[in-house]
Amino acid sequence: MSRGTLYLVPSPLDFGCEPQTPLHEVMPAGTLAVAARLSHWISENARSTRAYLKRIDASHRLALPIQALHIQELPRELHKKGDHDGRFDARALLAPALAGQDIGLVSEAGMPAIADPGASVVRAAHELALVVTPLSGPVSLMLALAASGLNGQNFAFVGYVPQDASERSARLRTLEGLAIRTGQTQIFIETPYRNAALLEALLQTLQPATRLALSCGLSLGGGWSRCLSVQAWKKQAPPDLNAPTVFAIGR
Amino acid sequence: MSRGTLYLVPSPLDFGCEPQTPLHEVMPAGTLAVAARLSHWISENARSTRAYLKRIDASHRLALPIQALHIQELPRELHKKGDHDGRFDARALLAPALAGQDIGLVSEAGMPAIADPGASVVRAAHELALVVTPLSGPVSLMLALAASGLNGQNFAFVGYVPQDASERSARLRTLEGLAIRTGQTQIFIETPYRNAALLEALLQTLQPATRLALSCGLSLGGGWSRCLSVQAWKKQAPPDLNAPTVFAIGR
Repeated sequence: MSRGTLYLVPSPLDFGCEPQTPLHEVMPAGTLAVAARLSHWISENARSTRAYLKRIDASHRLALPIQALHIQELPRELHKKGDHDGRFDARALLAPALAGQDIGLVSEAGMPAIADPGASVVRAAHELALVVTPLSGPVSLMLALAASGLNGQNFAFVGYVPQDASERSARLRTLEGLAIRTGQTQIFIETPYRNAALLEALLQTLQPATRLALSCGLSLGGGWSRCLSVQAWKKQAPPDLNAPTVFAIGR
Repeated sequence: MSRGTLYLVPSPLDFGCEPQTPLHEVMPAGTLAVAARLSHWISENARSTRAYLKRIDASHRLALPIQALHIQELPRELHKKGDHDGRFDARALLAPALAGQDIGLVSEAGMPAIADPGASVVRAAHELALVVTPLSGPVSLMLALAASGLNGQNFAFVGYVPQDASERSARLRTLEGLAIRTGQTQIFIETPYRNAALLEALLQTLQPATRLALSCGLSLGGGWSRCLSVQAWKKQAPPDLNAPTVFAIGR
């Protein structure tokens, strides 16, 4: 019996945002067509996966009704602690693929396994020698990097910065040092309700000539990207950062 | 008079490859619709931009005939030396935007300004306070990262590794050390005709337990992703790496 493929299915970047982006604006039809025919899913959150599939059904009729789909959720601890240390063995979730079913891996926004859970599933798929096929779709980190004008030939995404103020300043200084010394753009994110505090810390901590890029609500109506020196940002009224925001610094 | 927007227009990953990917498989209709209405372009290569626009015209009728489009090429030296050191002042290329025209920035494959020229143009746009809008499309580095199962919460793209054998080994050891010590996935690329030599160097240089991911020809027919330990790769026949390949290492 032939084995199923693990498809990595991206989703739009409007999770939790209003109004939603029309799917065809940001998702290739080829990606939606594959998603529409899958009956088995591994998901960060089953409820949001069902909502996404309902949106897909409006343009690409699902092969099975939503209630008949087989959706397995990733364990909650992977959401909080991250899914990159190799401790979670996801092979059991891939049993349907061993039985010949294609499986979709999906997170709540963007590409699964990038700044989101899912790497454990992909790792397990390689251990089981399954075919892994990533599908095209929006990746907020890359939209933000391209729109920053910062170095896109050498860059790092380092996840979240510490919440504690003094640890955060130390971390920001380390990242700035790296960016200045090596030219490597440093990209990071924060939960939206802490974005304003992070921006304030950045303006207090970084050197005046360091370039700081903010991309807020990318691919959403009203989304924007702006890259200025720290000293130029200080002369402006702080922007509204209530939508998902990607931060990047460079020299 | 209102100013034009700089759109960052991604392109499919099949540049120089046969057969080409149907555009709707990998490009959102929203991206193609914006591209079809733009009359002004800044491009890595005008000829390949015209070929791309001809493909777009088949599903999204161009507002102007291809011969009537205004396409400015980025200077050749940016292709060779990179476009990230801030030395090239691209503001003159953006004159049409100051005169109210929207402009598209496009490279030969994937997202402009990421592992490709274009950052100088985006930087200049921010200096001129133009609106910069990145459009969704495929980014080979992120398809490869997601498909690797390596850490996607902390990763770096470091461009090309040195060609000289001893410099290359030293660089690969440094990158492996970083990946092992910090958990940061290290991603890099090579020109296709040197892919086989790079793989050989990786297998000779890296530690047996280091995980090495190869993604070859992603989004193309016959494309594949595989992540194995170095010792497991050594037991296999070397894969064919004649299509564009992304390399990544992690612990």
